[in-house]
Amino acid sequence: MAEPNTNTNSLNDQPKGTRKRIGGPTESTPPEPGSGSGSGSTSGVPCGACKFLRRRCVDGCIFAPHFSPEQGTALFAAVHKVFGASNVSKLLMQLPLHLRRHAVETISYEAQARLSDPVCGCVSIIIALQQQVQSSKFQSKIVSEI
Amino acid sequence: MAEPNTNTNSLNDQPKGTRKRIGGPTESTPPEPGSGSGSGSTSGVPCGACKFLRRRCVDGCIFAPHFSPEQGTALFAAVHKVFGASNVSKLLMQLPLHLRRHAVETISYEAQARLSDPVCGCVSIIIALQQQVQSSKFQSKIVSEI
Repeated sequence: MAEPNTNTNSLNDQPKGTRKRIGGPTESTPPEPGSGSGSGSTSGVPCGACKFLRRRCVDGCIFAPHFSPEQGTALFAAVHKVFGASNVSKLLMQLPLHLRRHAVETISYEAQARLSDPVCGCVSIIIALQQQVQSSKFQSKIVSEI
Repeated sequence: MAEPNTNTNSLNDQPKGTRKRIGGPTESTPPEPGSGSGSGSTSGVPCGACKFLRRRCVDGCIFAPHFSPEQGTALFAAVHKVFGASNVSKLLMQLPLHLRRHAVETISYEAQARLSDPVCGCVSIIIALQQQVQSSKFQSKIVSEI
């Protein structure tokens, strides 16, 4: 998949003041294996999302399986800036566990694309691909007529 | 462009309680011609966004040029649910006037795609198009070798 420009210069703005607790306490399911930190309060290390939101990462934090303490903070900053933590939390809670990873991947992709290109976001990729499909079809037609 | 499923069944949930005034008063620029309602307090008819947010639509409301009182409410509901009014307002304010319409179009497109497909959003369209490009290239190669 075409990767959006992941320039994170504009992603370092920390949220101001205290924030409402989002997502965390409502989830009591275990983290998906092999993804994120799955931390929460047990390990004492907050996940990338809670680190960014400057809050305690509780057991079953909905973001913990997907945003690691190391690389997850910058990624979550993009997601938070474009979609908002609360909206993403609500969206993930509606999904079964096994689909959440893919949802986080596509949300992160869209968020990064929107920060790279605030006017078009990832829609510019769709437009470019549509033009490529049209061009390929046209070329196929020409070649088949020779 | 492939259109996302615009099923608006889930878009009718109105925001609860009173909300912080977002975007409106900071903008004093005239609405772009031919788009949305460009209303605000002058005409007395709130734009689709302010109607949805149940607030007074002031002169220079940032959403008014893009969300008409008639069709704009359902569209704004999708945008609000996925991105949040505040995030979209901030994003639009960073853009010059002539680019805002296109930004609203792509944001609305992404929002509708995410509501139709909460797991993949419009990324599913990107994946499908990438496969189509690959398939077209393969067919071209076969035809040219015959």
